[in-house]
Amino acid sequence: MSDVRIEFDRLREFVKRVFMRLGVREMDAFTVADVLVTADARGIPSHGVARLPRYIRGIREGMMIPDAEPEVVHETPVSARIDGRDGLGQPVSRMAMELAISKALENGIGMVAVFNSNHFGIAGYYAMMALEHDLIGFATTNTYPLVVPTFGRQAVLGTNPIAVAAPASRNRPFVLDMSTSVVTRGKLEVYQRLGKPIPEQWATDENGRPCTDPGRVLENFRARRPGGLLPLGGPDELTGGHKGYGLSMLVEILSGVLATARISAMSYPEGKGSGIGHFFAALDPGIFLPVKKFKADMDLLIDTVRNSEKAEGHDRIFIHGEKEFEQMERSLSDGVPLDTATFDILKSISEEFGVAI
Amino acid sequence: MSDVRIEFDRLREFVKRVFMRLGVREMDAFTVADVLVTADARGIPSHGVARLPRYIRGIREGMMIPDAEPEVVHETPVSARIDGRDGLGQPVSRMAMELAISKALENGIGMVAVFNSNHFGIAGYYAMMALEHDLIGFATTNTYPLVVPTFGRQAVLGTNPIAVAAPASRNRPFVLDMSTSVVTRGKLEVYQRLGKPIPEQWATDENGRPCTDPGRVLENFRARRPGGLLPLGGPDELTGGHKGYGLSMLVEILSGVLATARISAMSYPEGKGSGIGHFFAALDPGIFLPVKKFKADMDLLIDTVRNSEKAEGHDRIFIHGEKEFEQMERSLSDGVPLDTATFDILKSISEEFGVAI
Repeated sequence: MSDVRIEFDRLREFVKRVFMRLGVREMDAFTVADVLVTADARGIPSHGVARLPRYIRGIREGMMIPDAEPEVVHETPVSARIDGRDGLGQPVSRMAMELAISKALENGIGMVAVFNSNHFGIAGYYAMMALEHDLIGFATTNTYPLVVPTFGRQAVLGTNPIAVAAPASRNRPFVLDMSTSVVTRGKLEVYQRLGKPIPEQWATDENGRPCTDPGRVLENFRARRPGGLLPLGGPDELTGGHKGYGLSMLVEILSGVLATARISAMSYPEGKGSGIGHFFAALDPGIFLPVKKFKADMDLLIDTVRNSEKAEGHDRIFIHGEKEFEQMERSLSDGVPLDTATFDILKSISEEFGVAI
Repeated sequence: MSDVRIEFDRLREFVKRVFMRLGVREMDAFTVADVLVTADARGIPSHGVARLPRYIRGIREGMMIPDAEPEVVHETPVSARIDGRDGLGQPVSRMAMELAISKALENGIGMVAVFNSNHFGIAGYYAMMALEHDLIGFATTNTYPLVVPTFGRQAVLGTNPIAVAAPASRNRPFVLDMSTSVVTRGKLEVYQRLGKPIPEQWATDENGRPCTDPGRVLENFRARRPGGLLPLGGPDELTGGHKGYGLSMLVEILSGVLATARISAMSYPEGKGSGIGHFFAALDPGIFLPVKKFKADMDLLIDTVRNSEKAEGHDRIFIHGEKEFEQMERSLSDGVPLDTATFDILKSISEEFGVAI
């Protein structure tokens, strides 16, 4: 998949300049670029610079206001709610997480919800912002409706990711960043390109039956027919599909209802901003125990799990975030990996905008 | 399964009196009885009065101190940490959730962690305590190690439930109460009794391979051999097993590390209290938006999902907690359902303790 490697700073600078040409303020453009390039650098290309054309279209079609000025509309010592004013998702999310962090440093916890926002990239980016302050970080968002509830066939839920980051001492931090569906749409596109059937646990057809043809599921999305991705746990209660569906509901409650944003089912109305919402939190472990003990005990947990006996055929148990930290290191030393198709997209954007890559 | 029905109050009174005979104070005995009987009444018999013999044994063998007096050892306006002093899990959990609720009513959020505790019953009981105050409730616990991490074969994680309760207006509240494993041990016991193989996604054998023989998995538990239950999402990354494993880690961080409790892998050492921990939180939606709007928008979310199109062969989409509320209503009108085996256990306890049932 990685056919080209581009130096991290150079790629970020390119993306930043493209956004500036679209009317985004320099600081905001830097944030959007940093979130997108970090996704590629961490090995999550589905949320990386390959999405650039969608952002460009979103701004040009008026769905995203490039120079929106988000506003805190409600605030308490431990919480805030921010109106994103239909701007880009990344700058308002950075602002929200910074506010959550400052509240956590002051009062032990900070929770900030955002409404009138747009796609914010990888949830883990914001959760990880807490780490340099020795805080636990948390981020969720609702999204375009792509996921069917257990026993349903209509996509009324988003892929609704949950990200949690917690610092350790000797070890790298724990960084969980997961959609609450089995997989996201990008995985279906990969299988379609490869001409491979998808596992039965991933998606349903327009009748709500498990479907192994990725093309059919994707075509149903495009035609706005029923069908969609399945919640974590799969198609029914036997394997816990109702649990993934419940976690997805939890994300709708935090990022939609609490944030006064649109729930996923009502997001992305024709000709308007997506209206989705996010929820961020930062928690100071020091309000429970000395931070040094917290971090040392995180090491104990991580070491215990990682060093436990491996299943036949496996020689490593991964702690969440580990693979991505290793990818990041390689991206910083050897360049950020991009596949040829994505690099070609960047080259044509480079020409169109007159921004060197 | 339900061969006998006993009036709720009568069953609770019986359980309460048994615990009092074991040296538990009346208020605490009431709490333990209420949590256990509520589990049966809500249709979760795996966590109900059938566990009575285990509690009796736990107290008699000195693992649980019947008259322990839990103590708040650390406190801030939004948090507290409580030493359960090896007492029963239910009374200290009730105390902790009440403290979280009072902090939430005062400061918008309250989080209380508990260490040196024992099995607390159904997590949903405590999350639901927040509802009568129009708060969102949250409860987790770590447990006996029964779950293997992705690519592992040693059970180093608990079944680690997460419960969330959120109030609505016209609708019943949303009550999610889920283990972060595909299933809990009780399900394997049911399949063993029925002589049925279990699905491949549920458990591994002692080599870490998916295992469909429930007897083999249960025997491995008893013999303390490797093998165990799988995290939500199943045996590998293809169907998201690493996500359930990540959620289980999150519960270890909250209920184990933050609480200064034993992590599941180190819980239940021979001849001592289990040393497990819990984490409770209560959140006032009013620190984000008017509570009335929160509850009305919860209705919108619930109605949208419940009324969405059904999958072929299904005529109902369940909101989390709905089945249990309906069971509870039937239990209150017709009596709490117990199977004959459980009722026989209660009768022999009744004779032994001289407490009428």
